[in-house]
Amino acid sequence: MSPAMRRWAARRPTARHEAGSGSEAAPPRRPSVSRAYNFGAGPAALPEPVLAQAAAEMLDWRGSGMGVMEMSHRGREFGEIFSVAESRLRELLAVPATFKLLFMQGGAIAENAIVPMNLVDLRPGHVTEHVITGLWSIKTHQEARRYGEARIVASNAVEGPGNHTTLPVAATWRLGADASYVHVCSNETINGVEMHELPDLRALGSEAPLVVDCSSHIASRSIDWSRIGLAYAGAQKNIGPSGLTLVFVREDLLGHALPICPSAFDYATVAANGSMFNTPPTWSIYVAGLVFEWIAAQGGVAALERRNVEKAALLYGAIDGSDGFYANRVAAGCRSRMNVPFFLRDEALQAPFLAGAAERGLLQLKGHKSVGGLRASIYNAMPLEGVQALVAYMREFAGRHG
Amino acid sequence: MSPAMRRWAARRPTARHEAGSGSEAAPPRRPSVSRAYNFGAGPAALPEPVLAQAAAEMLDWRGSGMGVMEMSHRGREFGEIFSVAESRLRELLAVPATFKLLFMQGGAIAENAIVPMNLVDLRPGHVTEHVITGLWSIKTHQEARRYGEARIVASNAVEGPGNHTTLPVAATWRLGADASYVHVCSNETINGVEMHELPDLRALGSEAPLVVDCSSHIASRSIDWSRIGLAYAGAQKNIGPSGLTLVFVREDLLGHALPICPSAFDYATVAANGSMFNTPPTWSIYVAGLVFEWIAAQGGVAALERRNVEKAALLYGAIDGSDGFYANRVAAGCRSRMNVPFFLRDEALQAPFLAGAAERGLLQLKGHKSVGGLRASIYNAMPLEGVQALVAYMREFAGRHG
Repeated sequence: MSPAMRRWAARRPTARHEAGSGSEAAPPRRPSVSRAYNFGAGPAALPEPVLAQAAAEMLDWRGSGMGVMEMSHRGREFGEIFSVAESRLRELLAVPATFKLLFMQGGAIAENAIVPMNLVDLRPGHVTEHVITGLWSIKTHQEARRYGEARIVASNAVEGPGNHTTLPVAATWRLGADASYVHVCSNETINGVEMHELPDLRALGSEAPLVVDCSSHIASRSIDWSRIGLAYAGAQKNIGPSGLTLVFVREDLLGHALPICPSAFDYATVAANGSMFNTPPTWSIYVAGLVFEWIAAQGGVAALERRNVEKAALLYGAIDGSDGFYANRVAAGCRSRMNVPFFLRDEALQAPFLAGAAERGLLQLKGHKSVGGLRASIYNAMPLEGVQALVAYMREFAGRHG
Repeated sequence: MSPAMRRWAARRPTARHEAGSGSEAAPPRRPSVSRAYNFGAGPAALPEPVLAQAAAEMLDWRGSGMGVMEMSHRGREFGEIFSVAESRLRELLAVPATFKLLFMQGGAIAENAIVPMNLVDLRPGHVTEHVITGLWSIKTHQEARRYGEARIVASNAVEGPGNHTTLPVAATWRLGADASYVHVCSNETINGVEMHELPDLRALGSEAPLVVDCSSHIASRSIDWSRIGLAYAGAQKNIGPSGLTLVFVREDLLGHALPICPSAFDYATVAANGSMFNTPPTWSIYVAGLVFEWIAAQGGVAALERRNVEKAALLYGAIDGSDGFYANRVAAGCRSRMNVPFFLRDEALQAPFLAGAAERGLLQLKGHKSVGGLRASIYNAMPLEGVQALVAYMREFAGRHG
């Protein structure tokens, strides 16, 4: 038996969770001691009512005799799930009718190749322009080089701890006249910088469409579609399970895929087949639909945005008010509402900080390995109470060790 | 309100399923009147204990404080889920150590492009050879033409109702000496033909690796790895939810990806990163792991294969013994154990047959639109009792209308 198998055996479901045990215990319906506050950067916490409903409908979706995972993607039942999810999301984000909404696979990292395969041929030079703001936009730039000339038009990279902690002012971007598109990542999870306004490329003298990787803050705030040609998002932060990618593409950009673009990733083909050219990730779409329903029940994206502003203000306030015990390095005005990295003045306290947090059910607070320190991701599904609990713990910890 | 939204509203969860209602009703743990026998071709029925366990663990996976969808793919908990799933599947299918097992996205249709992007460069001519046995191998051939010269070396296509109802004898395949690989689809779901033995390409004079799309019968029978260079399978028939693709690739075939192959789909990159170059479809992998556990509990693939032989014999026997009331057109020796298409002598009886079946909880029996008629997909998760119920209904229906 391998060590992993041994750990597995030790983790066999407890009686409370035992499937087929005949026990009458339902999955927990309300916050319970067993649910932690999960500050992971993604895949990330989901709203508890979404999980509860997914569990309750697992074996029989609303009298259909089937669970959602068991449905034909072309059947009537899944057709309903799909079309309701799509129209809800369009409504929540006020997506204009000129945009196609595609449900795809592969996440943002696959999309880093799929976007150029679909759009680089918009202009003959096959030039793409990239604004570097952190690791994710760097990866996007590197991947685009497979398909054309990928230029860096601006960057926030510097030596030392200030690396990727600002945002290059749009007026300084060195935009050319020949680009097929300009790419930005509007929220970088690792250093925690967020574009609070998208650039107006026309005002900057560029005719190129703006392509936005908004994986890590989609649905946390409103989107100015007038500035966007294409936006994409891996689902696993604010939308649902990993394995689903949302692509919003302006219709006039369709139909330019390179001959080497796989059919399954040709936006025009995917759009013409209603995201069912290949079998879509049906379960992930179903859960995303439940999340959209939950967002609507919270009062929509505007209400969540207000809550996100409040949560972020509370957490940054605690950091900034700690007399340097904790520090966030990101320039004011560029700080992310979703991902809040912070550092302890005394690095030796990091391990005790994390251990004490875990004891209190405050999970996944370790920073990304490339920057170290701590990080709290406070996506839509993180309730204000979770941030309050974190802040209370931070104050208590600083009091003990300050 | 759109028609779809109206239908949705009418389907609001019933009291029994209401999430957060405080009701103590658990998801059903055993076969209940609300669970149907689901003969859909895919996404297809899953074992009920798998669904029950997934529901029970939804909000808190084994005391971790998180549901599986909420876990970091790089965290300890998901690491356990992943490595146990992988080692279980390797054991169940007796995968040799010389093969890498990759967990990818996009299904078999994406793989139709990903395979040539990775393997066509094995030989300088960029030639791929294809055995046509039905719609899925036709799609594979068409997609491969994007990346090289895709030759048809054998085909079972004929005019009329015998189309795709045989399998071309391997000795007749027109194999060249320059192919990068030879592709077969070892079970075609639409016409229901299955290769009960994989070709031995070396014995046929070819040095090319055999590439097998085994999406629709993986884990239903043993696999002769000595004849295979690469095998791939969309998960949504015998493995788990859609959105997950399994790729088994012999290590010596790695490292030949074309420069235009997206990093996320470069087998060498995926293998070097333990299927975590991009965020994998974590929930689908978890459910697949539960299915693997279920297969092991059934006695392994050999036991399921015996059961599948029995199920298929029962159903084909009922068709063949109906004095022509029902007919299956596939040549003896090529009949699929997984997908059993059949036709009513009197086509006018099809609608009443389907209506009566649905009344008895026998679902998704309509044939593929390209061939019409009826089809019962009887994958691993279909119990013998489901086939018995179908056969009993078929006899009763024939007695009433024969």
